[in-house]
Amino acid sequence: MQPKETRRIDQGNKLKSRRRSVYPYFLSYRTRWIDNDQYAHLNNSIYYHLFDSVVNSYLITQCNLSARVSKTIGLVVSSHCHYFAPLSFPDVLDLGLRVTHLGKSSVTYEIAVFKEGSNEPSAVGGYTHVFVDNSSRRTAEIEAQTLAGLKKLLSTVGDDGNRVAKL
Amino acid sequence: MQPKETRRIDQGNKLKSRRRSVYPYFLSYRTRWIDNDQYAHLNNSIYYHLFDSVVNSYLITQCNLSARVSKTIGLVVSSHCHYFAPLSFPDVLDLGLRVTHLGKSSVTYEIAVFKEGSNEPSAVGGYTHVFVDNSSRRTAEIEAQTLAGLKKLLSTVGDDGNRVAKL
Amino acid sequence: MQPKETRRIDQGNKLKSRRRSVYPYFLSYRTRWIDNDQYAHLNNSIYYHLFDSVVNSYLITQCNLSARVSKTIGLVVSSHCHYFAPLSFPDVLDLGLRVTHLGKSSVTYEIAVFKEGSNEPSAVGGYTHVFVDNSSRRTAEIEAQTLAGLKKLLSTVGDDGNRVAKL
Amino acid sequence: MQPKETRRIDQGNKLKSRRRSVYPYFLSYRTRWIDNDQYAHLNNSIYYHLFDSVVNSYLITQCNLSARVSKTIGLVVSSHCHYFAPLSFPDVLDLGLRVTHLGKSSVTYEIAVFKEGSNEPSAVGGYTHVFVDNSSRRTAEIEAQTLAGLKKLLSTVGDDGNRVAKL
Repeated sequence: MQPKETRRIDQGNKLKSRRRSVYPYFLSYRTRWIDNDQYAHLNNSIYYHLFDSVVNSYLITQCNLSARVSKTIGLVVSSHCHYFAPLSFPDVLDLGLRVTHLGKSSVTYEIAVFKEGSNEPSAVGGYTHVFVDNSSRRTAEIEAQTLAGLKKLLSTVGDDGNRVAKL
Repeated sequence: MQPKETRRIDQGNKLKSRRRSVYPYFLSYRTRWIDNDQYAHLNNSIYYHLFDSVVNSYLITQCNLSARVSKTIGLVVSSHCHYFAPLSFPDVLDLGLRVTHLGKSSVTYEIAVFKEGSNEPSAVGGYTHVFVDNSSRRTAEIEAQTLAGLKKLLSTVGDDGNRVAKL
Repeated sequence: MQPKETRRIDQGNKLKSRRRSVYPYFLSYRTRWIDNDQYAHLNNSIYYHLFDSVVNSYLITQCNLSARVSKTIGLVVSSHCHYFAPLSFPDVLDLGLRVTHLGKSSVTYEIAVFKEGSNEPSAVGGYTHVFVDNSSRRTAEIEAQTLAGLKKLLSTVGDDGNRVAKL
Repeated sequence: MQPKETRRIDQGNKLKSRRRSVYPYFLSYRTRWIDNDQYAHLNNSIYYHLFDSVVNSYLITQCNLSARVSKTIGLVVSSHCHYFAPLSFPDVLDLGLRVTHLGKSSVTYEIAVFKEGSNEPSAVGGYTHVFVDNSSRRTAEIEAQTLAGLKKLLSTVGDDGNRVAKL
């Protein structure tokens, strides 16, 4: 097996062990009929719709970001997801959100998808936002209010399960 | 103005006057980031995703329909929607469902979309399901258990606001 | 059967008889895997995604409309679709577009969905755009350049199959 | 910067250098109006809809896979994407597909998204399919016909740009 394949599987195993307590922010989403593809389970792409929803809900409701008015907006530069167990309409899903890396102009989110009532994630993934000026679309520093909100999502639990210092 | 245009506007005005009390079944849906199109409001097509979701939730959870096992399934033969007020992510929406026509092998649903806390619908639409055999896809009678469930959605309030007899 | 049900079926029969020659503008779309729902055919809501795509392609490429810059934009106030035959990924679809009503600030489109190589539509539907000021979102007259483009889509064939005068 | 962040950026730079010649199979997709989110560019999740479409098109048209009849089907266990340049409706996109790892019961695809006429990818990503029995959903060996088709997608160009042997 190629090293890249091995790394993918190792990362998957690590993410699979995540539990609810790692995530400081949660929102519940009802699945939709169209989320199921013809294999009668949630299509892999739907998880990214949900990631976008919980991240932008947090930015809008907790960080005062407005897609229409804000000077800087976050653009996705990379995304990934590991899928552990199938989900299916009409499941209700709890999405847990945390920040795993926070820089001056970028932030990396991790999102876990739990079926209502379960403490083992059905999928874990995330993406990296690079903040840009809304007009020029050039890289810009994260605004103070947004930064303050994002800091609250820096989990106190590290990837290896040890406590890590807050910013 | 052509008669067809006049009829469209008349129907719109009638649907706009719907209130929550007309609908026997409700489900709440969180909007998603991707529901907004580039005009920053819910795209017209998203309402149909929601219609499908509330109808199929009812069929699965209240009428024992299973997309994998049921002998007969409902296929959509026509659909429509009138839009009265814009909605926007991250709005939470309450979808009200009723049945306006129930035949031996077809059912017509009406769905109203209310913004959380509002009694005036942002949109009202619906569609007609013709039930077919899951394998042959030929028209079939609605199964007894499904029929019993759908009858409960036959609103007691008619289009003209008067009481109408239940089946 | 209620008069409304009869009218719905009559309208369906009329739309079903549409042929390619009625539509002045065509675009082909490849279906996507997610377009199929768990009944393994194109979900009813997907047709509206396609309607939006052919209409806005025409407005942007033929009428010089820009979602970012234009003073006036079209908002959908009502939409409808009749479905005649199932479609399924990976079908390629030809979408025919015409205008059936053109006012000072509104336009009604009709769109037919043909499977590649077929002259009988799998579905026919459409919607009405009311043009509004992009900032205030108040009703506005259609701009001259857009109006000129839309006039070209006023089919020369009427609903009854007879020739009708162009504007 | 954390090692994981550094690795993410390194991988992005490598994928950004991909050119059309690396991909043995191509399909063109017209973007849709709803693909644009309210930032007026293709939303990050839409790329996964397209990945699914080109992969399943290949499996159905070139490997004789049928979602309804095949004994084994591919389920996505992990997916990822790096985004290099924004795309926007109504862009037409060319999707290049290759296989980067092929095992007895799993396959890893890489897909590059090129704007029509460009040789530099706007995004590169992919996912891993694990094949399972369609009924039991237990891991199964890839069927001979599918395997033969997938082998044709094993690019002759390695990640480091050197020629690699075909299977």
